[in-house]
Amino acid sequence: MSIVVVGSMAFDTVKTPYGEVEDALGGAATYFSMAASYFCPVKVVAVVGDDFGDEHIELLERHGVETEGIERTTGTSFRWGGEYSWNLNERTTTFTELNVFETFDPQLPEAYRQTPFVFLANIDPDLQMSVLDQVEEPQLVACDTMNFWIEGKPDRLHELLKDVDVLVINDDEARELSGSYNLVEAAANIRDMGPSALVIKRGEHGVLAFFGDEMFSAPGFPLEKVADPTGAGDTFAGGFFGYLAQHGEYGPAALRRAVIAGSVMASFCVEEFSLGGLIDLDPDRISHRYRAFQLLTDFGDL
Amino acid sequence: MSIVVVGSMAFDTVKTPYGEVEDALGGAATYFSMAASYFCPVKVVAVVGDDFGDEHIELLERHGVETEGIERTTGTSFRWGGEYSWNLNERTTTFTELNVFETFDPQLPEAYRQTPFVFLANIDPDLQMSVLDQVEEPQLVACDTMNFWIEGKPDRLHELLKDVDVLVINDDEARELSGSYNLVEAAANIRDMGPSALVIKRGEHGVLAFFGDEMFSAPGFPLEKVADPTGAGDTFAGGFFGYLAQHGEYGPAALRRAVIAGSVMASFCVEEFSLGGLIDLDPDRISHRYRAFQLLTDFGDL
Repeated sequence: MSIVVVGSMAFDTVKTPYGEVEDALGGAATYFSMAASYFCPVKVVAVVGDDFGDEHIELLERHGVETEGIERTTGTSFRWGGEYSWNLNERTTTFTELNVFETFDPQLPEAYRQTPFVFLANIDPDLQMSVLDQVEEPQLVACDTMNFWIEGKPDRLHELLKDVDVLVINDDEARELSGSYNLVEAAANIRDMGPSALVIKRGEHGVLAFFGDEMFSAPGFPLEKVADPTGAGDTFAGGFFGYLAQHGEYGPAALRRAVIAGSVMASFCVEEFSLGGLIDLDPDRISHRYRAFQLLTDFGDL
Repeated sequence: MSIVVVGSMAFDTVKTPYGEVEDALGGAATYFSMAASYFCPVKVVAVVGDDFGDEHIELLERHGVETEGIERTTGTSFRWGGEYSWNLNERTTTFTELNVFETFDPQLPEAYRQTPFVFLANIDPDLQMSVLDQVEEPQLVACDTMNFWIEGKPDRLHELLKDVDVLVINDDEARELSGSYNLVEAAANIRDMGPSALVIKRGEHGVLAFFGDEMFSAPGFPLEKVADPTGAGDTFAGGFFGYLAQHGEYGPAALRRAVIAGSVMASFCVEEFSLGGLIDLDPDRISHRYRAFQLLTDFGDL
């Protein structure tokens, strides 16, 4: 199965205790697409400016990502700057320039419209809804969002959530969206809003997922070196949703394996700046890290 | 196999968003003993004042805990007060009265001296060492400590660690002891100090353990209701070490299951105030929660 993903493509200027990069390729749709590309065909919908070089398009295409839906327009691409604290646990946004992203009106190419798996990365819920409306008979719809939209467009977001199967957000967002600090309670509240599955990202502490009457917990992979956490959540989502699309199923067992696949991809992402940890992967390294997750979590009967 | 444990027995006055208790039975050795008692015989070494009623001794003995090593002296027992933030993530100590604990000089009864498994709960490293010296040929030695001793008696603590097989501490303590924020790096540093195994407690985020060339991660059990986190770490240690003693082995596979057994006991502990979650357990409820941990973490091959 293939995925259509809509979201930001950007240039990031990031500083962490391990170094810094300026105007490095970033954005939710970029991280998502690169991660998902290791599992299934991906079609990306985004907008970039005329400062977006061909080399970035070629990088995506080399990974099998369909780029016809990337609108290249006059102006400057979305730019974001962030700086991390010494322990990487806090992030300060140093600047956000929406630029061409401000007037983004996503249009799906004809060839995208019958894609069965739809991922709506964190953008205005109105745009997420517009993209979803352009897909004919989507089979599985997942989305992300953020506090800005939970606070700023709660009605539109709730409207959208009715049509979403899997919501992928972080713990703070789950707490704000549900009004409940306890994540078990938060999950029940959020699943009442529409999504049958909820996947809560907890940064270095991994992922807690709720589906059917099951809970599933995955750890963050303990790494000796974390260079740059930027994009880890979107990379997780790409690996997670890519795995589901690859197998064309989304029952409890597939969702569990997909959470680990996403965690594997996120663990590669944070080891390098920008997309550095994602560009040179191969199935062997992915399955080796997946096996490392098994060794990290396996235990026998009492 | 049986365990000898030395540590505090206390009366706690605790306030959480879910209620409060005054002068409720607490202390590291108490929580540890109660948890371990479900797995193996436990001999406790502690000091209490003449305000320590027979009902508390009887409670422990009813759970098969040997109490001959509890010194009952004139004066007031150790008392501690704490208040938790609305989300239970922060704790303020409202008072600490060492009382009879201040002059504690632990003496092991003759019947304790050949106990193979030794757990040194968080007390002055000099006292931990004194207890360890009184045990003839201990087979497995584990200990806990805290920032107060890491800062206040680093030399004595390092001396002790040379004789410790398993160090069980929380993440902040691991960071302070090692001087490294990254837990993988911290673990390597700490294991160079003596302990062949390190078990890092991360509160609601579970446990990360290092032994041989393996890492093992266990989640905190997602609970709908957490009444009172007091004693969860000591309860974890009791379940963990109790499991090892019950099986008389401490290879990698046993250590993994022991971490889960400890996590199971801690999950019961936090559901009630004081020891309320630990007094009425039975093997069925323990194995049922253990199975819930398996369901929480199981996933198949890629």
